[in-house]
Amino acid sequence: MADIEAAVIEDVMDARRVAAIREAVAAENTARVTELLEPLHAADIADLLEQISKSERRALLHLWSGEIDGDILSELDESIREEVIEGLAPDVLADAVRELDTDDVVDILEDLEEPQQELILDALEDADRVAVEQAMSYPEYSAGRLMQREVVAAPEHWNVGQAIDFLRECETLPDQFYHVILVDPRMKPKGYVTLGRVLSSRRDKMLRDIQEESFRTIEAHEPEADVAYIFNQYHLISTPVVDESGRLVGVVTIDDAMNVLDEEHEEDMLRLAGVDDEASLSDTVWEATKGRAVWLFVNLLTAILASGVISAFAETINQMVALAVLMPIVASMGGNAGTQTMTVAVRALATRDLTAQNAMRVIRREAAVGALNGIAFGLLMAVVAGVWFGVPMLAVVMGIAMVFTLVAAAVGGILIPMGLQRFGIDPALASGPFVTTVTDVVGFFAFLGLAAWILL
Amino acid sequence: MADIEAAVIEDVMDARRVAAIREAVAAENTARVTELLEPLHAADIADLLEQISKSERRALLHLWSGEIDGDILSELDESIREEVIEGLAPDVLADAVRELDTDDVVDILEDLEEPQQELILDALEDADRVAVEQAMSYPEYSAGRLMQREVVAAPEHWNVGQAIDFLRECETLPDQFYHVILVDPRMKPKGYVTLGRVLSSRRDKMLRDIQEESFRTIEAHEPEADVAYIFNQYHLISTPVVDESGRLVGVVTIDDAMNVLDEEHEEDMLRLAGVDDEASLSDTVWEATKGRAVWLFVNLLTAILASGVISAFAETINQMVALAVLMPIVASMGGNAGTQTMTVAVRALATRDLTAQNAMRVIRREAAVGALNGIAFGLLMAVVAGVWFGVPMLAVVMGIAMVFTLVAAAVGGILIPMGLQRFGIDPALASGPFVTTVTDVVGFFAFLGLAAWILL
Repeated sequence: MADIEAAVIEDVMDARRVAAIREAVAAENTARVTELLEPLHAADIADLLEQISKSERRALLHLWSGEIDGDILSELDESIREEVIEGLAPDVLADAVRELDTDDVVDILEDLEEPQQELILDALEDADRVAVEQAMSYPEYSAGRLMQREVVAAPEHWNVGQAIDFLRECETLPDQFYHVILVDPRMKPKGYVTLGRVLSSRRDKMLRDIQEESFRTIEAHEPEADVAYIFNQYHLISTPVVDESGRLVGVVTIDDAMNVLDEEHEEDMLRLAGVDDEASLSDTVWEATKGRAVWLFVNLLTAILASGVISAFAETINQMVALAVLMPIVASMGGNAGTQTMTVAVRALATRDLTAQNAMRVIRREAAVGALNGIAFGLLMAVVAGVWFGVPMLAVVMGIAMVFTLVAAAVGGILIPMGLQRFGIDPALASGPFVTTVTDVVGFFAFLGLAAWILL
Repeated sequence: MADIEAAVIEDVMDARRVAAIREAVAAENTARVTELLEPLHAADIADLLEQISKSERRALLHLWSGEIDGDILSELDESIREEVIEGLAPDVLADAVRELDTDDVVDILEDLEEPQQELILDALEDADRVAVEQAMSYPEYSAGRLMQREVVAAPEHWNVGQAIDFLRECETLPDQFYHVILVDPRMKPKGYVTLGRVLSSRRDKMLRDIQEESFRTIEAHEPEADVAYIFNQYHLISTPVVDESGRLVGVVTIDDAMNVLDEEHEEDMLRLAGVDDEASLSDTVWEATKGRAVWLFVNLLTAILASGVISAFAETINQMVALAVLMPIVASMGGNAGTQTMTVAVRALATRDLTAQNAMRVIRREAAVGALNGIAFGLLMAVVAGVWFGVPMLAVVMGIAMVFTLVAAAVGGILIPMGLQRFGIDPALASGPFVTTVTDVVGFFAFLGLAAWILL
């Protein structure tokens, strides 16, 4: 065990190792840099390159660029990747991309500018170049872009022994494969057999007799989000991709699907918070400022709209300044309750748990939750407002306004994402400003309107 | 292709099929219910059970409960699962759990109450029961709970032929396995070979000569969140789990890791929005109300605190009601900018992209972004406020307050999650109220304080 433990510790990218690497880079000690980086996984090296500053990155690449391989390029965040590729010698770049599977090359190409794309395509061998160009001809974010074109397929009528003999003789197997796909003479997939079943069956067993019960193909034009959903929903490990005529053209494996799922999550989370969904920690100040400004601008408009409501009640506030003190509480509670419901709704739409079947029930439930919390917090705030300002009717206004606002927040929080989805707009992207507008306007209007009516 | 297409369409859970199932349930037509449900994947049946109402669910189970198998139970959301298990006949339940791998049984057991746990344990065969009880002895949310105990291991000195012969003779192989793990005589893992390599190598090839270059083990007590991170970071497909003395005790496969990753994402997203992280669409009104109330209460306290700041400037507002109209704009912009930064920070901490290495650089960047957007929106709002109320100095106050607030939002938005993480508190859970308090208090104080100082 001792040697394994040592190996595990050696692999780890900890603060000590990072400090040592930075020192070695500063001292321009190539041998030491290599010694420290060499045992690391490509993913960890990519993380390191992302986390150090731009000048340190340049210095490190200067000392060590010859060792940058395809796996590291694959793992790098796109903003950094472009920078790194620019700094690589053409032959290093060529070696790096040649060792990758086509799906990884496509993944790298997608995010690059035209001249860099040419550089990489030129570096590939002819067959690979054709494969990559074919993949790039599928729409962005489609299964065709995601799949690897290296497939392991066998005729339906083969037995286990024939499959094993074929695999032993095959010279270019994909890095990763988990099934032998059964195809008919026109290359149309008919089923698949897990490698575990192939290995544990006798040589004379027919492949079709040990194929998996459940079998799905994906059409190359399907959006990658649907691919991720299918993998997650049906616990797939790999699945054949077919063209429009049903012929096998590639395979999507679970690591790609997991990646898409991860990106979709990140997108939803960032979009809900109004952050550019391609934001990365390595963005410059200027990129980040622009990415945030769009949403802040939209929020400014909704805030001005809400201020317009307040402005209509300026006379009322002038007669009782306590209203100005208390009104942000109503709006804030509304905003929070709206965000709660909206987030639940956006998530449920993404996981396809919120459907036409249960929409009415969920809307009713949310409205009831809003009413119950409205009553609870309305009573609480009525007491607080009454004690604070000594005006009993102000307490009544506060309580009623809270109920109105929380019910509006709940109903708006679910109807707005559902409505956006219906019109083909990503609910994660656009729900926030609409929901905030509803809660602010209803909150201020209910509170100040009731005050003007009851109090004055 | 025609038959495959037909099969694919048959598998789909569309609105038409759901409507047909509901009709059949209402008509108590067992044959028709079975015919409609039979071709569906367990995951889709589970979704259907989650989406129909409680009374429909009871009616459907009454007609069809004999067919509920382990896979469907596995796929069900826990709130519904408990209800379904209660309704099953003991022998149906026993059959259902007996066909599952131990990790799936453990997953089901975890969420059940004591008496239901006993029911299921009693249904298992002795060997499985021991395995499940051992797994349950590991801490909740640990690799030990996540792993399947069925492993495929071979001595290091075996060759490919020996491995294949062993697999062919083995009677109880796991449903899913992707590697043959190489172990020493004391069952300590030394490496592993992908099934693809075993299949494509000659019988006399030594397993140790075709083992994977990169090899990691996971200790059974490691938190499942770390397991998910390792799978995602290193693109693993399965990985051996060892006990404290380094002996092989199980295997975690990627579908389990993907599940954990998915749950972690959902947790972060819901927690950020202040929703109970175990919330589900099938929660009752009362459960949902309680789950949301905690956060709303915390938000009420911070809102009252912010109102206290306004209250201190009541005299100022009394002299110029325009302040009451404009102040929510400052607070709202601060709140949104704070949420943007906080979300980026929480996500980056979760993916381990924000580390001690780049913390200072990211904090500086966020502060700069806050300052730039503060200046841009400060200028914009100064113009709006100046034109709206015709008071030039009010425009100045608005502009300066906006800069202060957005810088505070940016710095608070990143320092608060980092600080919470340092103290071992989940930043997704607790950042929101702190950040809102900072932006509200700074926003109101800067705007009203400057107004009192400059304007009056």
